[in-house]
Amino acid sequence: MAVYTDVSDEELAAFVARYDIGAVLAAKGIAEGVENSNYLLHTEQGFYILTLYEKRVKEEDLPFFIGLMEHLAARGLTCPLPVKDRAGSALGRLAGRPAAIVTFLDGMGVRRPGVAHCAGVGAALARLHLAGADFAMRRANALSVGGWRPLYEAARDRADSVQPGLAEHAGNALNDLERHWPKGLPEGVIHADLFPDNVFFLGPRLTGLIDFYFACTDSLAYDLAVCLNAWCFEQDGSYNLTKGRAMIAAYERDRPLTPAEVAALPLLARGAAMRFMLTRLVDWLNVPPGALVRPKDPLEYYRKLRFHERAETAVDYGREP
Amino acid sequence: MAVYTDVSDEELAAFVARYDIGAVLAAKGIAEGVENSNYLLHTEQGFYILTLYEKRVKEEDLPFFIGLMEHLAARGLTCPLPVKDRAGSALGRLAGRPAAIVTFLDGMGVRRPGVAHCAGVGAALARLHLAGADFAMRRANALSVGGWRPLYEAARDRADSVQPGLAEHAGNALNDLERHWPKGLPEGVIHADLFPDNVFFLGPRLTGLIDFYFACTDSLAYDLAVCLNAWCFEQDGSYNLTKGRAMIAAYERDRPLTPAEVAALPLLARGAAMRFMLTRLVDWLNVPPGALVRPKDPLEYYRKLRFHERAETAVDYGREP
Repeated sequence: MAVYTDVSDEELAAFVARYDIGAVLAAKGIAEGVENSNYLLHTEQGFYILTLYEKRVKEEDLPFFIGLMEHLAARGLTCPLPVKDRAGSALGRLAGRPAAIVTFLDGMGVRRPGVAHCAGVGAALARLHLAGADFAMRRANALSVGGWRPLYEAARDRADSVQPGLAEHAGNALNDLERHWPKGLPEGVIHADLFPDNVFFLGPRLTGLIDFYFACTDSLAYDLAVCLNAWCFEQDGSYNLTKGRAMIAAYERDRPLTPAEVAALPLLARGAAMRFMLTRLVDWLNVPPGALVRPKDPLEYYRKLRFHERAETAVDYGREP
Repeated sequence: MAVYTDVSDEELAAFVARYDIGAVLAAKGIAEGVENSNYLLHTEQGFYILTLYEKRVKEEDLPFFIGLMEHLAARGLTCPLPVKDRAGSALGRLAGRPAAIVTFLDGMGVRRPGVAHCAGVGAALARLHLAGADFAMRRANALSVGGWRPLYEAARDRADSVQPGLAEHAGNALNDLERHWPKGLPEGVIHADLFPDNVFFLGPRLTGLIDFYFACTDSLAYDLAVCLNAWCFEQDGSYNLTKGRAMIAAYERDRPLTPAEVAALPLLARGAAMRFMLTRLVDWLNVPPGALVRPKDPLEYYRKLRFHERAETAVDYGREP
């Protein structure tokens, strides 16, 4: 949930007047995305999402994110399409912050994804990777292996207060990942945060992908490893092989994995679990007492990490041998 | 901002299937209302607001609120119209809570109301009072004079931590209000919380009233006194006589005040300031440390209370003598 910046009706009217979308009829702060302020915007032309970029998103990265959404939408991927103002720019300023208007996408996040949803995500992820292949801009992944140690250092001293032994276990796992992290795998644009919140469905049909604000240039198979973590575990912590199989098979229908990617999958999955465990751990340890927003549980990803440490090959994730 | 209850896509689809509004296409938690969870709902038929009633709204009061919105909308007042399910009921249950779907109203709250907005509110308030005259249900005002002492008692011991002298001053003012609170003024349905958040405009044109969850049966002129408090003071604490004049004149164009109401206006305004000062004070003193939602400032209403204590007649509020 996130509406951080309050926008006055006068500021909003002046901002929207720069676009060819008619006058503002209504604007309501919506609980979508955790990094930015989002408003549902009704104008004489229809419904849109207005995003104000808050400080956790770097302003210099915005042309990458906006450009990527335009690029993907032009290639038929259903994602928010940034609306350009009359001067041809999709990025403006409102209430002292960078701001953009994007198209409204129907569909909803699913709380309990089924096998069909996992297949849908696999297929959409492959389409995203293929559609991104000729995107010219690059953005390094600040939360890949090189970014994990600073997070670990920030959390280490208090990690055992969350779970005894966590600091040592995570330290060893991190050493191992740093030594063996795969290099030279096929790279391109990845979403890097394709969790159930960021994928819209109507029934079993995937209707769109949102929230490209972690997107970056990195190993494509790492993105699949993020999705296996985010979609294919059950509430009780067990890995659902049927879901994994459906996701991987749907992905490979459009973009078959190379042998090197197949071999690296358990390591990539371990790294993805480490990334989300560490960012959650830092947030968990730094939540102000009494805060109304409860941070996400880092131990969910600690359990996933330990699952990955026992996995040997991609077959353990449901890939056909 | 308020989305307290999380609704799964399956629960929502099942709930909406009971109505003739088509299938759900999207639902987004919106930051509207402080007492309930609100979702913007897009269905095959259009846009709606879905409200889940949280514990601060008493379930036994809901038929009054829903019935009132139906009654007012049927008489041409622009307010949310509750949508009935196929069984003819506008009140259902979703995620363990009472829930209703109402129509979507265009327009936005104004942050800095001008004279024209104040006139619009005065006119709309008179229309509301006239349209409510033949509404058959009654609901006592739990936050009228009889409800203030328990709030005062809950806050007294720590009131001086907010402002030295506040406990004694408020205690004396409360004694005085209890002794002199007017009886026998014209009664009917009042909104009781018609603050700028709850009135939508497009430019200077008032497009609708929302949030009837404090509505009750009470003195009509008290409702006007609430609005004078909420709309006619400037940020610096001064009362804007031009705004007050515009509001009162617009109100009286449709519903002239009786001589008793005119005479009571300063006392009613003082009571309205007491009511909002006390509820804000209790919230202020009971906010958990570190909470992300900052309560509203009780001292704003303490300053207004002191203005009203110096007012002698309705002329001090801008009514023509």
